[in-house]
Amino acid sequence: MKLYDFPMAPSPRRVNVFLAEKGIEIEKVEVDLRQAEQMSEAFKLINPHCTVPVLELDDGTYISSIDAINRYLEEIYPEPPLFGTNAKERALINDWCHYINVNGFMAVAEALRNSASRMKDRAITGPHNFAQIPELAARGRERVGYFFEDLNAQLAKTKYVAGDAYSVADVGAMVVVDFATGMAKIELPESLTNLKRWYMEVSARPSASA
Amino acid sequence: MKLYDFPMAPSPRRVNVFLAEKGIEIEKVEVDLRQAEQMSEAFKLINPHCTVPVLELDDGTYISSIDAINRYLEEIYPEPPLFGTNAKERALINDWCHYINVNGFMAVAEALRNSASRMKDRAITGPHNFAQIPELAARGRERVGYFFEDLNAQLAKTKYVAGDAYSVADVGAMVVVDFATGMAKIELPESLTNLKRWYMEVSARPSASA
Repeated sequence: MKLYDFPMAPSPRRVNVFLAEKGIEIEKVEVDLRQAEQMSEAFKLINPHCTVPVLELDDGTYISSIDAINRYLEEIYPEPPLFGTNAKERALINDWCHYINVNGFMAVAEALRNSASRMKDRAITGPHNFAQIPELAARGRERVGYFFEDLNAQLAKTKYVAGDAYSVADVGAMVVVDFATGMAKIELPESLTNLKRWYMEVSARPSASA
Repeated sequence: MKLYDFPMAPSPRRVNVFLAEKGIEIEKVEVDLRQAEQMSEAFKLINPHCTVPVLELDDGTYISSIDAINRYLEEIYPEPPLFGTNAKERALINDWCHYINVNGFMAVAEALRNSASRMKDRAITGPHNFAQIPELAARGRERVGYFFEDLNAQLAKTKYVAGDAYSVADVGAMVVVDFATGMAKIELPESLTNLKRWYMEVSARPSASA
């Protein structure tokens, strides 16, 4: 098994933190996004969607979505469980994963990719170029604000995002907060105290540096 | 168990077709999207994201993302398996589900919601209003074209979307094709013969009318 990776980028980090929580070490191959190596013809044979991370299985199969990679790793290395321990827990975690991906991760990406000058014509990842849409950057920022508020409201009720146990939903949400406040320069409002309490806690785990 | 449903809409159909393939009958409660019932205060207590479908478990827990609902149903009713029968099959199906959701389903929604006059200020589902962005409608249509081409290329190699067996990826992709060609009025190009072969086949299954 081999992970195509770029340690500075938020998407592969969602797998790297997951691996660190599991205590798994696997071979990693760096794909240099600064040099647009993900757009090369060589890399398109690995992943025609031109994104990292990609997990290569021992039989040469490539898995290219974060969700599919983490679920595969959960199945191969079940301990500690990060997708829940029974059907209901799994359903609540899956619900949060969906929400975090669509309303958190994609909203930050929308804000960043439609405004950063280095991402001109790269408003969406993948093999096709798309022009930036400034209104979409503004909409993305607004959506991230709602996402933070929703997460804060949830974390008034629960210790971790999807309940009492740390899960893959916390991995995703932590990476969204760092992606937003770092690359996209969207502040975390001081008033969201539950979110800040949780963020400090998950960020102090050794896995957070992965 | 109870499903909050609106039979004419594409999102709940992704659960209804799944249920039909499993041969499961469950109680259904209609939420009339034409009357904006999903935006009512009463429904916000069921799902603050103001979307259907929602699965209510017997203990009163609500599950509101299609992915989480179908995975829960797969766990409770494992036969016939629609998420694969081993780790690698599951990974390939999960990969396709992600691709279909982001590049198929969301692209059609982007095309439709940013152009239909009845969806003014409803460019995104959920409790917050967002103005339509006409460039986003055009971009959505272009993305759906690429999605159809990618699916056609895959279906030159495989009988069903994720391999030799019918899976939840076929449910999702069929609903995307119907959503695109129906509500969003995006044509399926005649030249995409593999996609058409597959579409006729999956649409002939009894579950397709669900």
